[in-house]
Amino acid sequence: MEIAIALFDHCTALDAVGPYEVLSRLPGAAVHMVGERTGPVRTDTGMLALHVDTAYDEMPEPDIVVVPGGFGQRDHREGSALQAWLQKADQHTSWTTSACTGALILAAAGLLEGRCATTHWLAYGDLAALGAQPTDERVVFDGKYVTAAGVSAGIDMALSLAARCAGDEKAQSIQLGIEYDPQPPFDAGSPTKAPRFAVDAVTAVRDYIV
Amino acid sequence: MEIAIALFDHCTALDAVGPYEVLSRLPGAAVHMVGERTGPVRTDTGMLALHVDTAYDEMPEPDIVVVPGGFGQRDHREGSALQAWLQKADQHTSWTTSACTGALILAAAGLLEGRCATTHWLAYGDLAALGAQPTDERVVFDGKYVTAAGVSAGIDMALSLAARCAGDEKAQSIQLGIEYDPQPPFDAGSPTKAPRFAVDAVTAVRDYIV
Repeated sequence: MEIAIALFDHCTALDAVGPYEVLSRLPGAAVHMVGERTGPVRTDTGMLALHVDTAYDEMPEPDIVVVPGGFGQRDHREGSALQAWLQKADQHTSWTTSACTGALILAAAGLLEGRCATTHWLAYGDLAALGAQPTDERVVFDGKYVTAAGVSAGIDMALSLAARCAGDEKAQSIQLGIEYDPQPPFDAGSPTKAPRFAVDAVTAVRDYIV
Repeated sequence: MEIAIALFDHCTALDAVGPYEVLSRLPGAAVHMVGERTGPVRTDTGMLALHVDTAYDEMPEPDIVVVPGGFGQRDHREGSALQAWLQKADQHTSWTTSACTGALILAAAGLLEGRCATTHWLAYGDLAALGAQPTDERVVFDGKYVTAAGVSAGIDMALSLAARCAGDEKAQSIQLGIEYDPQPPFDAGSPTKAPRFAVDAVTAVRDYIV
């Protein structure tokens, strides 16, 4: 099973690495970090680079595609190499997926037209403007298109996808392997639960996220 | 605030990237991916490389150290460059931390002697053999030493640490920014909750984890 995770300048690292950590543990999985050219890609904070090992044109027919978000997604509208690759690769995938504002890239490629999907909570309007039907669920399956909410939701998405690909038992073993028994110290992870000051603080830095 | 995350061959990517994604959002934080030499470091699956930007000797006095785990931890006993750097850097840190089997590296450096600590559930015995007192808590603070359970627990650890460094309000805003409202599809993330077959399956691949 060939799994391609697309990396681009100013993507959010955890959007890519969360799904990678889960999907790389699927039986027979080969995860490829793909991008416009091989070499390091600097993520959104500038403080971490992930390495692209495979250029888009070397991976034309992946089984699964994962597209992360991050404010660099703005550069991947019509005409970008990522868009062109996505539109072709999607013709071969069993699953085309995103984490966070990666959904905006899928939508801009025309892959989420009229479909239910999710993204970072700050980007529901952007997702709707690109033709999808945003929901506030954490993981949304609509046919072979699977979208996750902001950043960390990619882990939940990938575990759900692992269950579809390899069965519930395998997904549970992967969850135990990465000891994913989350115990956040606060209950502030969604705008419906977080205190008002947190919603305001994150909204104020929207440009660094979406 | 200078935050150094140590990378080494065959470390587990999410152990490093989970804490990075949280701590990089602290006010005034500069996160440095440090290692023996600059350039790409291949993680434990072989399918992803993270980039070291700063050599150990360029970062002698970090405020916070984060040590990930992964089976590559076995190479970092007495005499390794990481051990030597850790022992010196720890004299300057406000917080010395680990995710997963990174605790074994801290313990082997003599930093957890007699201290309460945690690690991946498969490695409690190894941690005890290195002089620490293992517990099955997800995040353990003992003085300035903070250890997290397996892989994904680094996210919870970093949020708790963010609260200590910058206050609960900032930590809640970071949690909302990365939309960390976990909803795993199964309740199988710890050996006390997971089905027996999952415990057996993960134990069978112990060598790829610890």
